[in-house]
Amino acid sequence: MTHPLRLHPDRLFPADERSRAIARALYAGVKDLPIVSPHGHTDPAWFAYDQPFADPAELLIVPDHYVFRMLYSQGVGLEALGVPTVDGSATETDPRAIWRLFASHYHLFRGTPSRLWLDWVFAEIFGIDIRLEAATADHYYDVIAAALPTPAFRPRALFDRFGIELIATTESPLDPLEHHRAIRESGWHGRVVTAYRPDPVMDPEHPGFAGNLIRFGEVAGEDISTFAGYLRAHENRRAFFRAAGATSTDHGHPSARTADLPPAEIEALYARVRSGPVTPAEAELFRAHMLTEMARMSVADGMVMQIHPGVHRSHNPALLGRFGRDKGADIPVPTGYVEALKPLLDRFGNERDLTIILFTLDETAYARELAPLAGHYPALRLGPPWWFHDSPEGMRRFREQVTETAGFYNTVGFNDDTRAFLSIPARHDVARRMDCGFLARLVAEHRLEEDEAHELARALTYDLVKKAYRL
Amino acid sequence: MTHPLRLHPDRLFPADERSRAIARALYAGVKDLPIVSPHGHTDPAWFAYDQPFADPAELLIVPDHYVFRMLYSQGVGLEALGVPTVDGSATETDPRAIWRLFASHYHLFRGTPSRLWLDWVFAEIFGIDIRLEAATADHYYDVIAAALPTPAFRPRALFDRFGIELIATTESPLDPLEHHRAIRESGWHGRVVTAYRPDPVMDPEHPGFAGNLIRFGEVAGEDISTFAGYLRAHENRRAFFRAAGATSTDHGHPSARTADLPPAEIEALYARVRSGPVTPAEAELFRAHMLTEMARMSVADGMVMQIHPGVHRSHNPALLGRFGRDKGADIPVPTGYVEALKPLLDRFGNERDLTIILFTLDETAYARELAPLAGHYPALRLGPPWWFHDSPEGMRRFREQVTETAGFYNTVGFNDDTRAFLSIPARHDVARRMDCGFLARLVAEHRLEEDEAHELARALTYDLVKKAYRL
Amino acid sequence: MTHPLRLHPDRLFPADERSRAIARALYAGVKDLPIVSPHGHTDPAWFAYDQPFADPAELLIVPDHYVFRMLYSQGVGLEALGVPTVDGSATETDPRAIWRLFASHYHLFRGTPSRLWLDWVFAEIFGIDIRLEAATADHYYDVIAAALPTPAFRPRALFDRFGIELIATTESPLDPLEHHRAIRESGWHGRVVTAYRPDPVMDPEHPGFAGNLIRFGEVAGEDISTFAGYLRAHENRRAFFRAAGATSTDHGHPSARTADLPPAEIEALYARVRSGPVTPAEAELFRAHMLTEMARMSVADGMVMQIHPGVHRSHNPALLGRFGRDKGADIPVPTGYVEALKPLLDRFGNERDLTIILFTLDETAYARELAPLAGHYPALRLGPPWWFHDSPEGMRRFREQVTETAGFYNTVGFNDDTRAFLSIPARHDVARRMDCGFLARLVAEHRLEEDEAHELARALTYDLVKKAYRL
Repeated sequence: MTHPLRLHPDRLFPADERSRAIARALYAGVKDLPIVSPHGHTDPAWFAYDQPFADPAELLIVPDHYVFRMLYSQGVGLEALGVPTVDGSATETDPRAIWRLFASHYHLFRGTPSRLWLDWVFAEIFGIDIRLEAATADHYYDVIAAALPTPAFRPRALFDRFGIELIATTESPLDPLEHHRAIRESGWHGRVVTAYRPDPVMDPEHPGFAGNLIRFGEVAGEDISTFAGYLRAHENRRAFFRAAGATSTDHGHPSARTADLPPAEIEALYARVRSGPVTPAEAELFRAHMLTEMARMSVADGMVMQIHPGVHRSHNPALLGRFGRDKGADIPVPTGYVEALKPLLDRFGNERDLTIILFTLDETAYARELAPLAGHYPALRLGPPWWFHDSPEGMRRFREQVTETAGFYNTVGFNDDTRAFLSIPARHDVARRMDCGFLARLVAEHRLEEDEAHELARALTYDLVKKAYRL
Repeated sequence: MTHPLRLHPDRLFPADERSRAIARALYAGVKDLPIVSPHGHTDPAWFAYDQPFADPAELLIVPDHYVFRMLYSQGVGLEALGVPTVDGSATETDPRAIWRLFASHYHLFRGTPSRLWLDWVFAEIFGIDIRLEAATADHYYDVIAAALPTPAFRPRALFDRFGIELIATTESPLDPLEHHRAIRESGWHGRVVTAYRPDPVMDPEHPGFAGNLIRFGEVAGEDISTFAGYLRAHENRRAFFRAAGATSTDHGHPSARTADLPPAEIEALYARVRSGPVTPAEAELFRAHMLTEMARMSVADGMVMQIHPGVHRSHNPALLGRFGRDKGADIPVPTGYVEALKPLLDRFGNERDLTIILFTLDETAYARELAPLAGHYPALRLGPPWWFHDSPEGMRRFREQVTETAGFYNTVGFNDDTRAFLSIPARHDVARRMDCGFLARLVAEHRLEEDEAHELARALTYDLVKKAYRL
Repeated sequence: MTHPLRLHPDRLFPADERSRAIARALYAGVKDLPIVSPHGHTDPAWFAYDQPFADPAELLIVPDHYVFRMLYSQGVGLEALGVPTVDGSATETDPRAIWRLFASHYHLFRGTPSRLWLDWVFAEIFGIDIRLEAATADHYYDVIAAALPTPAFRPRALFDRFGIELIATTESPLDPLEHHRAIRESGWHGRVVTAYRPDPVMDPEHPGFAGNLIRFGEVAGEDISTFAGYLRAHENRRAFFRAAGATSTDHGHPSARTADLPPAEIEALYARVRSGPVTPAEAELFRAHMLTEMARMSVADGMVMQIHPGVHRSHNPALLGRFGRDKGADIPVPTGYVEALKPLLDRFGNERDLTIILFTLDETAYARELAPLAGHYPALRLGPPWWFHDSPEGMRRFREQVTETAGFYNTVGFNDDTRAFLSIPARHDVARRMDCGFLARLVAEHRLEEDEAHELARALTYDLVKKAYRL
């Protein structure tokens, strides 16, 4: 026995009819607006060379840490899901076997955003109308595998079908950005820009940091034996990234700490960082100081800063040793902003032409710290709910906890922040529906007028992201 | 094109019809109860001399940090809003220009409590029926400016029109309370009482502390060269404040820390505090010990203690230097109560005749710490949602997170805590509506009977505040 | 005048009709499922000897810390409630006087779970149809006192009436488990199992620890002068408990900290612990290391671990001195899991056959730490909302904050965790209603299909608890 797969037109709207009717009307006004994706992790090579995706497992399961972390938590080994090992030892290579294993555990995703995104992909992109479960695994596999080689399912065709106006990828300063150049030179109309993510050359605890630093000097053509040269290397690479369309930088640090060290101190610290190894405290201080330097450069070159702090990366050493980083073992930690950001804000918080977008995985900061900070400092804006909180309840908590203090206009629309290309429209659709639902409740409770809600729905969907990211 | 301004009679009630109908009935029973305002920051001179308010900008914008922090966050300088500078350098002086600037940014307040309060003031006090925006700025200015000089808009007339039974102001121990005396001697019927806020003479990090301490000895007529004399000075000033109607003290500390030092230690610490300067740790310890001394005095003289902890004041040094304190740059920080209050509670927590009202800006403490503490210690009560949380969502979170452990009867009704006199009825009205909405949900979900909800609505509006503050 | 007491069939369901209708249907499918109570504090002697309960006060008030903490917070002395003193000095002995005092304060429980549980007991068990208040106190007392001696109100009859399939008690390793033996030998059909709670012999700060340790060696028949012998004593007692039906251990530590010390270090620490006294840091480290040892033993013997961290026990020293422990003065504190559990997880987190169930009183950990951890590590599951959060709003927050990251299948159904035997069905009923309400909202918002919701309602009520606790 199979079950139907249906995407209800009212999904995610509030249950009470008064609010739902308003939400429907608001959503009708924004559902077809173009997708602006200012921060994410798609592969620019897809758009550069427009090759078909490999197979259903490789497309939808193997690279999706939301998916395999849930299966892993219930006893499914990553080997069986085809996740590659560090030492190259064998893992499952039959995509159909991987797909069947996934299908038989699909009930684990009930109530999760992955379920919403995947069902949307199945129904909307592949036209499937029965639910994924063990009994339908092969049907799914066959339908998807048959579609992928066809022209309509190539990256550029999907880009157009999704109504993407612009998408940003994220690259290391060491990246030559040749895929972005290939896109530009191809004459294709799609806008794919990069973003400057300097962690590999700014975080002394990044794997391979020492080698990265040497290459950084080489690609930037700067003598990085002094801190001044190191800063010039950043300036050079930032300019190179801006030429490839970048309007933003991105910083994924363990904490939100910033520092503003006197020249002699940072020079000495940089010397230790360069010769290595450094203590965790020194690494933290270097990253902290560098955020302030990045803000200084942003004031000069106009790039928008994004700060994504507060994750204990690779919490599971056995998994790290066998499968490497980014395998679903990253766990959020308590994250403070008020003291942490002060050194940076003391110098640049009042800059009207600087935009720093703050993210958090510690929702306790929303109402206590982030909304009060963003509701005061001209340089600060609040990014949308991130990672584990990129979900209906996470979005609801975000709006409920930040709006009263920061307002809507200190937020910046939605980020999909994903490498799961096919799910991008689904993710934006969830955000649009949840924002419309939140606005609808305000209207239903007579806290906002309907004409204002329509204006806000459009702002949250389209206007604010373009303004904040200078797109 | 203008838009209508309407205050819907069902505003802030739950959207589902079942709960809304119950909320309407509950609200009908409390909407006209007198306003009891046990803690706030209005100027007693208004009521003493009953002079008209100056102009729309001076009344509604220039002193309201909720308003100018939001505009500042979006790039509007405080100079353009007429906020006075520390060095007396010029800022905007044309109230109409300030008003127009405010009006053109009024959309920033969508979804915020300021919008609810201001719309109420515009509609209910000034009878305006079109929305504030750039196009209606002059109409607003003219209507308000014309009304202010008339007798109906003087402080005492508004006090009566608002149905205020009692209002408390907040003064320093150094204050001679001459405005309160003038009120009493005027024969006017309005009850305006003071509250004892000793931070300027109890917090070694308060600006001007050294001078304040000298004046404290003088106004109290005590030799404060010993700690015993310093305590006697507090006792004297508390008695003076009680004679001016005060029933409460108020303490705005960076943390909730308390201490109970042995006599020799506090004597030595006081000597260092008096000679100054002290370390931050010494200042913190002195404040901590003094909270326990304040509790001891409250046991003796019956004054209710209010503790308002957990703010990083003046987070923005550039703004502090140019415009001074209280300019919208105060940011909440994580605040613990369980260990912090223990020294005080060890001595006085079981006193049935002592009332200590706890506030927080760290909502994580509601369910984890504050409700369990207040649901046990006879001396503790929970103050209403404070400052950034004095808002519909903040009130909802407060009731949802404290009621199940502390019940309703360990809370103390509403505080408006404002200097924005005209908004006081709007603030109390929001609290009444949100409390009725919360009770209505309990009734609709059959967790409470309707007769009990009516009794509770009255208790939350009127009975509990009078009992807790001994009014 | 009295008021009716009614248990509405729709109680606790969402207020909007769309969700409510779905909740009703889901609840109809689970309301009569057997009660599986895998963790609690009932007295096995009740089931062993089936004696009648003493009187209404002794049954419902004197041992219930939820009840007397609320009355105490409002100025009612524990003496007047008949709570026994440490020194044996007199307290109230007239159960009717105690009952009247309770009745006259029953309004304090409005909006609390105690009110829900007690009203259910009054209406469902004793058939009372008027509300408890001063005027009905004697009626209540008479009805309950008359019922208690009758056969239908004896423990075993109630066990059957409640539909209990299994109940777990909690005992110290020092307990001879003679009541459990008596139950087995009586031939009665009821399943009453124990659980291994080693805090008295594992927490150096436990009152009487030194003497407990000596007795521990005696009852286990092991020489505990070495750490190896101490571990063997645990292994022996765990085997003894398993023979009495235990499938789980339980650990009530001040924090979630774990450690994995090298042999020489733990041997030296154990020597200090055994000779005593130890510093708080040493006590913490010993508990921390022992959690990892307990995990090691659980891998070997299959017992499920429960960790209940994060309470400041006996916060009120005056109350502790006069009335002893567990008198309503336990207060939650901030509790971190990510760093705290790492040493244990580094060794055993990837074990698929180990189950560690985590509880918290710090709800900020739900979305930030616990759901991400349980959504990754095969060994981890999340226990239901605990203690102060075992309430409608607490349950709602739990599902809203953990489901999107951990899913439903990393949770383990409901724990009543109570010694209040009569309230057990009421507590499970609240959980079933709230879970059905949560699922109903997902269905109403088209985030879940109705057939899946029915399957999940059954899983949350019955299947998951049996699987997680291996019952």
